[in-house]
Amino acid sequence: MPKIEAKLEQMGLKLGEPIQHPPSVVIPFSWVLVRGKHVYIAGHVPTNQDGSVAEPLGKVGGEVTLEQGYEAAKLIALGVLGDLKREIGDLDRVTGWGRVLGMVNAAPGFNQTTAVINGFSELILELYGPECGAHSRSAIGVAALPLDAPVEIEAECDFD
Amino acid sequence: MPKIEAKLEQMGLKLGEPIQHPPSVVIPFSWVLVRGKHVYIAGHVPTNQDGSVAEPLGKVGGEVTLEQGYEAAKLIALGVLGDLKREIGDLDRVTGWGRVLGMVNAAPGFNQTTAVINGFSELILELYGPECGAHSRSAIGVAALPLDAPVEIEAECDFD
Amino acid sequence: MPKIEAKLEQMGLKLGEPIQHPPSVVIPFSWVLVRGKHVYIAGHVPTNQDGSVAEPLGKVGGEVTLEQGYEAAKLIALGVLGDLKREIGDLDRVTGWGRVLGMVNAAPGFNQTTAVINGFSELILELYGPECGAHSRSAIGVAALPLDAPVEIEAECDFD
Repeated sequence: MPKIEAKLEQMGLKLGEPIQHPPSVVIPFSWVLVRGKHVYIAGHVPTNQDGSVAEPLGKVGGEVTLEQGYEAAKLIALGVLGDLKREIGDLDRVTGWGRVLGMVNAAPGFNQTTAVINGFSELILELYGPECGAHSRSAIGVAALPLDAPVEIEAECDFD
Repeated sequence: MPKIEAKLEQMGLKLGEPIQHPPSVVIPFSWVLVRGKHVYIAGHVPTNQDGSVAEPLGKVGGEVTLEQGYEAAKLIALGVLGDLKREIGDLDRVTGWGRVLGMVNAAPGFNQTTAVINGFSELILELYGPECGAHSRSAIGVAALPLDAPVEIEAECDFD
Repeated sequence: MPKIEAKLEQMGLKLGEPIQHPPSVVIPFSWVLVRGKHVYIAGHVPTNQDGSVAEPLGKVGGEVTLEQGYEAAKLIALGVLGDLKREIGDLDRVTGWGRVLGMVNAAPGFNQTTAVINGFSELILELYGPECGAHSRSAIGVAALPLDAPVEIEAECDFD
């Protein structure tokens, strides 16, 4: 079993299935796009293991707590990794993570965006280690996200 | 005539001229920046074919409807392609689109950002086809945009 | 003395020390990440020369004026360059700036985000000149930033 997937299994975590979005939502873009040895990962919202959009929806610091936002960011990592595996075949092929943009649907006055997006970053680092898993990052509060998701994260990485 | 421009002509569309922004606005950056074979495209606001800033201005879901937001995103694509042609000489040189960040000036409660930015994505895909035109994307609601534009889009692509 | 640092000294400016963030804030990402010859620079908030978070905090157009926002963006450039030097050893190794994303913590109704982020862009251009210093850019208003910072900027560049 590939190394990353073995680690996920040890942690009791599973890769996410493709997102099941409402049929009315048209998606004219690629969730994971390979260009040469570079991978662009589209902004992902939190999904459950079966690909359904994860609840709770809404604004972090409002309907959604900081802790739920952190868990949402972790779910995003599992959804991203599921899509990434389907595109490049093997998660062990990643040679280095790059840029991460974490976007938090922030209630007025909520600015602990760093702590929310850590749910994504800490899982990537735990899985890939301090060199391959290292990434630069911004974690910002935005005015709105698709489907009223509490968090959305896009990223880039390289693979062999 | 180059292939992309021929398609645009068939569709009755024209590349945008350079933006005519208010003289008080200082622009110390490049609208299109070439580094090796990679192109960084700065955040563009909607402009008319003559380069004037396109109306309506304001927030999508407020003064600006979803449909007008979609059209604004399509105008951005034409402005981006105009700037891109002036920089790389020929739109047919693009070998693959990469990352797209769509930013919607969202009125409170408006979160159909995906549908707005589709105005950009669908035109790029129609012009460049499903392989070269494929791109990853995030479509988010932001608190404010320059000139009170309803939409702003930045992107990256590769060229030969 | 390296050329860029000599220019900074002539201008009476000093590189920033590493950020001193509150100990409760966990930072599981890299402020500057090198991948091959490409550098990803994480979103930086304004810091003083000693690395302390720079005041004033809050929203531009609210507690923070446009002019203070411009100065904050300039401080970010000095913090970014300090981190960049610590990572690549010599600021003269930069061969070209790439993408810049400027995020302004915008008070309702404030949209002069371009003028704020110019504090970053103009310093980079003055130091690196019109070719190496050229960069693409978006300057947007966001709903919230970590530590309630008025501005946050992320960037990319290449080096030899």
